Amino acid sequence: MYVSGSKKEFAVIGLGRFGGSICRELSQLGMEVMAIDVDEDRVNEFSNIASHAVIADSTDEMVLKSLGIRNFDHVVVAIGDNIQASILTTLMLKELGVENITVKATNDYHEKVLRKIGADQVVHPERDMGKRIANTIASTSVLDYLELSDEHSVVELMANKRIHGQTLQDLNIRARFGLNIVAIKRGKEIFVSPRATEAIYEGDILIMIGADDEIDRFEVYLEK
Amino acid sequence: MYVSGSKKEFAVIGLGRFGGSICRELSQLGMEVMAIDVDEDRVNEFSNIASHAVIADSTDEMVLKSLGIRNFDHVVVAIGDNIQASILTTLMLKELGVENITVKATNDYHEKVLRKIGADQVVHPERDMGKRIANTIASTSVLDYLELSDEHSVVELMANKRIHGQTLQDLNIRARFGLNIVAIKRGKEIFVSPRATEAIYEGDILIMIGADDEIDRFEVYLEK
Ligand SMILES: Nc1ncnc2c1ncn2[C@@H]1O[C@H](COP(=O)(O)OP(=O)(O)OP(=O)(O)O)[C@@H](O)[C@H]1O
Ligand SMILES: Nc1ncnc2c1ncn2[C@@H]1O[C@H](COP(=O)(O)OP(=O)(O)OP(=O)(O)O)[C@@H](O)[C@H]1O
Ligand SMILES: [Ca+2]
Ligand SMILES: [Ca+2]
Ligand SMILES: [Ca+2]
Ligand SMILES: [Ca+2]
Repeated sequence: MYVSGSKKEFAVIGLGRFGGSICRELSQLGMEVMAIDVDEDRVNEFSNIASHAVIADSTDEMVLKSLGIRNFDHVVVAIGDNIQASILTTLMLKELGVENITVKATNDYHEKVLRKIGADQVVHPERDMGKRIANTIASTSVLDYLELSDEHSVVELMANKRIHGQTLQDLNIRARFGLNIVAIKRGKEIFVSPRATEAIYEGDILIMIGADDEIDRFEVYLEK
Repeated sequence: MYVSGSKKEFAVIGLGRFGGSICRELSQLGMEVMAIDVDEDRVNEFSNIASHAVIADSTDEMVLKSLGIRNFDHVVVAIGDNIQASILTTLMLKELGVENITVKATNDYHEKVLRKIGADQVVHPERDMGKRIANTIASTSVLDYLELSDEHSVVELMANKRIHGQTLQDLNIRARFGLNIVAIKRGKEIFVSPRATEAIYEGDILIMIGADDEIDRFEVYLEK
């Protein structure tokens, strides 16, 4: 069901947990998605989710050609355990002229090969999510974060008793820690750019931006 | 090598890509981590990374007891394909009185069971990372994001030709889109709380906060 001429067309090869999730989310975002897997059961699962769902072996060049894969704007290769199939598929997508290729890697060697043969983006879902989870469980106050650079982040920090009832002015976080509170989440409400007279309550979630070591310092202060 | 009395102690059961990454990152964050797997080779990989690395089957209650697992502050169960082992391990950890248990789930049924038996946090690494990747590839300008709620996010957006050379004042994003630019990333530098007279250049990364539909509207404006 093609809706608009400017809409991007995606193909996802491999409908495991990772590829399946990409397929689902892209479809939910209103994108055109062709879902491809060798496994018939997997493909059937996606027949009502994706724009098209096709049983096909992506290591067969004729199959890729007949699917018109070169016409897709972005192809995701989410074949996991069969590293050779992942590499071969990527190689052929590149040769066929696909412009954007994102591939799931299983380890560093796999990534190196993928980059050499021209994959545009290589992702390590389990590794990256492991890193994320580690960072949120290592700290009692950090709930989630966005890495801006090696040294800066945006974090969601849970306010506790230590600062309950204090205003932003009282806390003076900008002067003392060099951090900015860009928003406060309280229940279902979000206050963006809170005023200096805004009081913080236990359970509030503070969205803060700043240098990682200053964020650490503020966490230590919170948990003291 | 126990360093400080206040430091939290973690155990990670299952050293696949996900559990291995958690173990690595926690160690790098300076935490005490015990790495556990039935597979000797996996355990050897972590002998120089974790505080302790132990070959053990976590479905054996005597083994868990002898490891003193109840004394750990947080235990992560990162057993993937063997759902029964994951459930049985979680059940025993709970019975032994472990206070914080994070478990990797393979599907929705697995999650339901884990929650019923008292897992404190259930994670779906492949699914969550799939969602993340889908959102960043669906848009040409969105590089990464942090979901604050169902309706609000912090996003990293790549500035393009369309707004090159304009100041924040010129763009007037706050009034026109209800969005705030909380920082600008230019090469390796990050300007937090940029002034209204700051000009934006193609390739700058804008860190913005606001309602998702307004962010979408700004993306459409950028890509027009
Ligand atoms: N040559 C191929 N062509 C099309 N699909 C393939 C091919 N090889 C494997 N697949 C499919 O890719 C999917 C993902 O592969 P696999 O399950 O090995 O990866 P995984 O990393 O364990 O997945 P995840 O962790 O995301 O669940 C499977 O559904 C499999 O059928
Ligand atoms: N009973 C058990 N006790 C300890 N370790 C176990 C047990 N069962 C499985 N493991 C280990 O858990 C690890 C992860 O399991 P598995 O590889 O099945 O999960 P996975 O979801 O494919 O992993 P990932 O996607 O994170 O690489 C393996 O190293 C395996 O040896
Ligand atoms: Ca936390
Ligand atoms: Ca697997
Ligand atoms: Ca996996
Ligand atoms: Ca993007």
